[in-house]
Amino acid sequence: MPQLKYYYDFMSQPSRALYIFLKLTNIPFEVCPVALRKGIQHSDEFKEKLNRFQKVPFIHHGSFKLAESIAIVRYLSREYRDVVEDHWYPKNSQEQAKVDEYLEWQHTNTRLHCASYFVYKWLIPNMTQSPPDANEVSKHESNMLTCLDQIEDLWLGQGHKYIVGDKISVADIFAATELEQPKMAGFDVCKGRPKLKAWLDQVKQDCSPFYEEAHVITNKIASQAKRAKL
Amino acid sequence: MPQLKYYYDFMSQPSRALYIFLKLTNIPFEVCPVALRKGIQHSDEFKEKLNRFQKVPFIHHGSFKLAESIAIVRYLSREYRDVVEDHWYPKNSQEQAKVDEYLEWQHTNTRLHCASYFVYKWLIPNMTQSPPDANEVSKHESNMLTCLDQIEDLWLGQGHKYIVGDKISVADIFAATELEQPKMAGFDVCKGRPKLKAWLDQVKQDCSPFYEEAHVITNKIASQAKRAKL
Repeated sequence: MPQLKYYYDFMSQPSRALYIFLKLTNIPFEVCPVALRKGIQHSDEFKEKLNRFQKVPFIHHGSFKLAESIAIVRYLSREYRDVVEDHWYPKNSQEQAKVDEYLEWQHTNTRLHCASYFVYKWLIPNMTQSPPDANEVSKHESNMLTCLDQIEDLWLGQGHKYIVGDKISVADIFAATELEQPKMAGFDVCKGRPKLKAWLDQVKQDCSPFYEEAHVITNKIASQAKRAKL
Repeated sequence: MPQLKYYYDFMSQPSRALYIFLKLTNIPFEVCPVALRKGIQHSDEFKEKLNRFQKVPFIHHGSFKLAESIAIVRYLSREYRDVVEDHWYPKNSQEQAKVDEYLEWQHTNTRLHCASYFVYKWLIPNMTQSPPDANEVSKHESNMLTCLDQIEDLWLGQGHKYIVGDKISVADIFAATELEQPKMAGFDVCKGRPKLKAWLDQVKQDCSPFYEEAHVITNKIASQAKRAKL
């Protein structure tokens, strides 16, 4: 098996998800942190040699380069099928399709809306040292609330312990890491959503200690946001 | 093999993509058109019995229900592997990963930006009989232009005939159907992008006559938009 190099930044939600997956499954990999805040991803050298999309996460598996976290998790589940336990990404066609259903749904739902809220409420104001644009925050908060209610009702409301069925899968890891993002902007995604809270606590427990490890920085920022609100 | 029922509306880009895929691969299916403009997807009965996400496309395969077009195309490629030619969704792990890379990338790029432009430039003004919101149109046009340039450079600029490699795959069908959406709002995605134009002409030819069949309505609207500009 060729060497696996994993490029990531813990401020990126899918970077955290893939890191947790790699650690939980014991896939051997070399850690290659990329400090997005320093902007090195914008260089021509980065684009040419590392990742033409100039984002994280991505992998180099020998000479094979791959971006897009969901494509990566599927690829790794195939390549390392002897070590990745089946529940993470089931081989059974219908069970796999149900995990895929969430992984495809989340792009323009959990991912888009939680990230947009965080960007307008926290990231842009912090980068520009200006107050948040109230209209943008309100629009993205509204989209995020609809999405959170759909997670509570359409996903967790199906009577299963996890997003898809009664066993933890990669869908749960990807969902949970996205929901950590609005916390940094002081927003409690669990409030008024008992199923979401119970599920998130369970996922954190199942993914310990790697979940905490991947969220050291985001938890620090979330604590500051919480203190600022008191 | 259980009966496959395909629910779709030709105004929906992924609906057209899956229809073209189903016809080209000769997968036997029952056509179940859903007229989104009539709003039947909003009923409780639709949510309960047909698709809890209240959108199209989706399938019922016997008693198995599945939404999300990308999850569906992957499921069908597995279930009907004896009739689906390998180039559409390769079994080779790295080739499949490269098709997945585009399919995952497109959600918040081709799909999001071309659809948003169409919605603000054409759909909302037509539904509300009011002029388009110039700020929103400008913002979404700018995002779409960046995305189109990335298709020209980062995907088609890799020296291959198609989005991923030298054989047509589902990535090409999904990309092409998204690019038809801004045409309805009078926007020519090919202008100034020679690689994109050559590729799109090729995909249309390869997918004939089903490409035209799925685009009868959108082509009619695009012709009206073109005439209105003259």
